[in-house]
Amino acid sequence: MRHMYLAVIQMKTTEDKLTNLKTATKFINKACEQKVDMVILPEMFNCPYNTSNFPIYAELENGDTYKYLSDLAKKHKVYIVGGSIPEKDFNGNIYNTSYVFDRKGKQIAKHRKVHLFNIQIEGGQYFKESDTLNAGNNVTTFNTEFATFGLAICYDFRFPELSRMMVNNGAKAIIIPASFNLTTGPAHWEILFKSRAIDNQVYTIGCSSSRDCSASYISYGNSIAVSPWGEIINRMDEKEGYFICKLDFSYVDKIRNELPLLSHRRLDLYNQNT
Amino acid sequence: MRHMYLAVIQMKTTEDKLTNLKTATKFINKACEQKVDMVILPEMFNCPYNTSNFPIYAELENGDTYKYLSDLAKKHKVYIVGGSIPEKDFNGNIYNTSYVFDRKGKQIAKHRKVHLFNIQIEGGQYFKESDTLNAGNNVTTFNTEFATFGLAICYDFRFPELSRMMVNNGAKAIIIPASFNLTTGPAHWEILFKSRAIDNQVYTIGCSSSRDCSASYISYGNSIAVSPWGEIINRMDEKEGYFICKLDFSYVDKIRNELPLLSHRRLDLYNQNT
Repeated sequence: MRHMYLAVIQMKTTEDKLTNLKTATKFINKACEQKVDMVILPEMFNCPYNTSNFPIYAELENGDTYKYLSDLAKKHKVYIVGGSIPEKDFNGNIYNTSYVFDRKGKQIAKHRKVHLFNIQIEGGQYFKESDTLNAGNNVTTFNTEFATFGLAICYDFRFPELSRMMVNNGAKAIIIPASFNLTTGPAHWEILFKSRAIDNQVYTIGCSSSRDCSASYISYGNSIAVSPWGEIINRMDEKEGYFICKLDFSYVDKIRNELPLLSHRRLDLYNQNT
Repeated sequence: MRHMYLAVIQMKTTEDKLTNLKTATKFINKACEQKVDMVILPEMFNCPYNTSNFPIYAELENGDTYKYLSDLAKKHKVYIVGGSIPEKDFNGNIYNTSYVFDRKGKQIAKHRKVHLFNIQIEGGQYFKESDTLNAGNNVTTFNTEFATFGLAICYDFRFPELSRMMVNNGAKAIIIPASFNLTTGPAHWEILFKSRAIDNQVYTIGCSSSRDCSASYISYGNSIAVSPWGEIINRMDEKEGYFICKLDFSYVDKIRNELPLLSHRRLDLYNQNT
């Protein structure tokens, strides 16, 4: 099978974790009525996006949220990309982590955000994930019966190197749970999803929380899916909801065959680490 | 001085080389009346863009076109980025080459297109630069009193690795003489200039020939300049003409200071060459 259906859930995150899990469940149930193969949740879907919250909401691996998602994946026989949640390890380190479960509810991948979002504008915006988070150290891909997927979180997507490495590892689609804001969203969100898709000839999928203007960090929303030729397949506005899109991996092969960008790279010349 | 003025010339290329040089001269003279610091010409501005023409129009270094441009630079005391021309070496190899002259007419850089554009769609478009061209092997940057510039040609710009290397070498603006076509132009031209600008926090400037629907390869036109935040500063339509834009390098510093993408890279993790 070369095509599949994917549900992208743009849900609202509240301060109550159980409410957030119930919201996720409601949308997952609804999407699964339409026989999707995979469901994607937004970044920090169980915890308001705020550095001071991360230690409070953090769970050990196999914690409540983890089990909740695993059970839902098993129940509906779908892949779930669990957006991200604050994860803590036994040393007290906290990460921005995305877990992926297969149709049996088994964890098949885990991405800890590699690039932490730190911004400090003189007299303006201050936001430093590194105040409470540690960075991951791995490039993440996972396999399904349809294709290999790449997975990264929000600010990770700013760095073309990371997407390229996923593609080197076989990714034909890149999934990005994310939460851009009202400055970076309108300026860069769509262009990033289009350009990573075009450069790497992959599907790109961005899953954001919906916009909550009463939150301390206001999410842009605009969850999006882009084809390997750079066409927008779906794009939401700022409101809560979801969309279902079809990914056809024979289209990836067609694009890569017609304009063989990846094989035209001059790997003999590149040295990115200088 | 942190700002400068740049003229981007979207000229028509005919089959007569002397006519092309006269057209370039006319526009350069015109732009220089407005006291610009640098003039940019399009890819293959002295030769219709067609692989079979390249051997016929090719010149040795220091040939007619080279001298013509050098003299113009000296006369007007401007930098000239000489789009590109077919260059031949003493072994009969031919390259798609861009020469850069300083205000004294001295050559300060030379870029041979590194990625050759080869496309072969079953039952469709066939275009292989490698039929007659050899590829260059260098990443090109050059210095001015304003900033360091990166320089590459058309298809080179498809590869994020190359722009990144220019930026590692100090580039705060990237100049791309180019000739996208009516398939790739509408689909990808603007996105590439925006995304390379955003990812690298540099100005990007694309200089195309104007559209000639009677040519065998029809150019998209739409010469463009984009800011390091991804804003379009200038963009032409398909017709012959030119624009002058201001590049302010203190704005590059401001963007890089506010959202320090380049210093947030995880160079410890990247390995692009696998």
